[in-house]
Amino acid sequence: MNAASLLIEPVKPDNGWPPPYLLYLGDAPDELSAKTARGVAQFRPEACIGQFRGPNCQVDLGLPDMTPADACAKGARTMLVGVANAGGRMDPASVAHVVQALEAGLNVASGLHALLADQPAIAAAAQARGLTLFDARVPPATGVGTGLRRAGKRLLTVGTDCSIGKMYTTLVIAEEMRRRGMRADFRATGQTGIFIAGQGVPLDAVVADFISGAIEWLSPERHDGGWDVIEGQGSLFHASFAGVTLGLLHGAQPDALVLCHEPGRPHMRGLKHYPLPSLMTALDASLSAARLTNPAVRAVGVALNTSKVDDAEAERLCRETEDRLGLPTQDPLRHGVGRIVDEVRERFP
Amino acid sequence: MNAASLLIEPVKPDNGWPPPYLLYLGDAPDELSAKTARGVAQFRPEACIGQFRGPNCQVDLGLPDMTPADACAKGARTMLVGVANAGGRMDPASVAHVVQALEAGLNVASGLHALLADQPAIAAAAQARGLTLFDARVPPATGVGTGLRRAGKRLLTVGTDCSIGKMYTTLVIAEEMRRRGMRADFRATGQTGIFIAGQGVPLDAVVADFISGAIEWLSPERHDGGWDVIEGQGSLFHASFAGVTLGLLHGAQPDALVLCHEPGRPHMRGLKHYPLPSLMTALDASLSAARLTNPAVRAVGVALNTSKVDDAEAERLCRETEDRLGLPTQDPLRHGVGRIVDEVRERFP
Repeated sequence: MNAASLLIEPVKPDNGWPPPYLLYLGDAPDELSAKTARGVAQFRPEACIGQFRGPNCQVDLGLPDMTPADACAKGARTMLVGVANAGGRMDPASVAHVVQALEAGLNVASGLHALLADQPAIAAAAQARGLTLFDARVPPATGVGTGLRRAGKRLLTVGTDCSIGKMYTTLVIAEEMRRRGMRADFRATGQTGIFIAGQGVPLDAVVADFISGAIEWLSPERHDGGWDVIEGQGSLFHASFAGVTLGLLHGAQPDALVLCHEPGRPHMRGLKHYPLPSLMTALDASLSAARLTNPAVRAVGVALNTSKVDDAEAERLCRETEDRLGLPTQDPLRHGVGRIVDEVRERFP
Repeated sequence: MNAASLLIEPVKPDNGWPPPYLLYLGDAPDELSAKTARGVAQFRPEACIGQFRGPNCQVDLGLPDMTPADACAKGARTMLVGVANAGGRMDPASVAHVVQALEAGLNVASGLHALLADQPAIAAAAQARGLTLFDARVPPATGVGTGLRRAGKRLLTVGTDCSIGKMYTTLVIAEEMRRRGMRADFRATGQTGIFIAGQGVPLDAVVADFISGAIEWLSPERHDGGWDVIEGQGSLFHASFAGVTLGLLHGAQPDALVLCHEPGRPHMRGLKHYPLPSLMTALDASLSAARLTNPAVRAVGVALNTSKVDDAEAERLCRETEDRLGLPTQDPLRHGVGRIVDEVRERFP
């Protein structure tokens, strides 16, 4: 499957942060820190005019480098702050670059925990020009979760770790379902997904008491026979973020789980002292937790991120995993997700 | 054990919400909604001058009824808003009562999600008088959890459900340890515990990404051979709040778990469609989750809340549970927690 072929619903033009976009990378130190920008460039290529990089940036999205003024002259309407760091803070250089974008006439949208509007220089520049500041990490006001069963089918991605391919897998499953004439909607739970879909819940920014309630809000009952394909977050085995993952599992009350994994990853993301769980351990724990709100939940496939090995090794890893877990196993980027969606159709006719 | 005998560290006098207290009950509809006020009255009796009740209040703490002006004349310094409701909102009658307290000269401390300072009438009244508004549900700024092992021993209470006796159990275990000459500190994770201890983390108000990090902050390394006795929250089996519980388990990296349960409770608190898990199911799940950050974790006892049955039945329930789980089982209110602390000393000499 070619990512560029994905049919993502366009962002509504009246949402305050309209395309086209200039993608801000700042001094992104590595690929993972720039995953938001890369995701938007990959899934909304028609909306991305250029990239704006700091002097120490280690990432290149392959877009033309340009300043906010250049981007504005080429028609850009919004600068997306597409970098993330642990804790989501905003450094002085980023603040200065955001002010530069506003002074050039661009709206600014950010996925950081730190709010744009909390920076006085940014707030003043936006107000002076009548431009919009959009913080993708400001969650909607929702109630606490009820755990009540609701109509409709839901598929959720879970993972052995963070940053392992859950969003990508979710997007391509939703697209593959639509390609086959099924009704399917991608439900975003992180800032990158929100920037791609134009809506969603920034789950890591929700107040702890409301995690499952926010997902019940994001994926309400549906009666059209279609699927909500919900973006997973974190991992039950990540010592920093597992609470988010568990609340998401309970709120989603998934019918179907797809487990995401990257073979060969040496340790949990950001935690050098923690090895990854085995696939079977992660799958069993996810199914066990999900049964609380949907006792009929079942696994329908495994998505492997094999980006670091060659085609033959990727094939071997998928076959080996498939034999071991008894579930269709594919790398969504190399192989698409056709066999996983076959399994969904067979198990939920 | 008599609650009044507990030696709780006094609130520091310079914390902005000094004792003595007037406990505000408003129109509390039932006992559970007033558990914050009751907890303070029970564990800090010397600090409580009276209660201030609305016309429809269904709760009586046995303290003298008085208005804020009466309380002020008797020496009160702070009114504690000791009622809670799902979602933590503040109704117009409560706002008016808080303003009345400020106008009488009392500082005000609240444990609701809704912030005192967000009510213009309250903010104005406090500012006009130079009085302090303290919101116990505003969490400290902390980092994300690291999962790194830290020195010191930690005991955590877990439960089959919410509102089942975890705070009470934690308080009496810390006190029993101190009575025996052990070093032990109660670590509060909810608004009632914070009001009792004078400090802590309101875990349900922490942003989801920071749940385990907040607990690592609350219970840092200690090298004096003593115990942090950490107040549990929620339940891994509560469809609304399990994410909070899991992050707490991971952040606490407990050496010892005490399982809290109320025999005969018909369904999960607030969720009529969810039965309680069995004690063994809840204990296994808690131990399994806790092993991620402390593989050596072990259970040291069961605390039963037998308030709805007589002494003989309470004895029978404890014996039966003890035989089934192989752990010392006591009702902390009826029997104290001596045998549970015996088990701690035996397992952690």
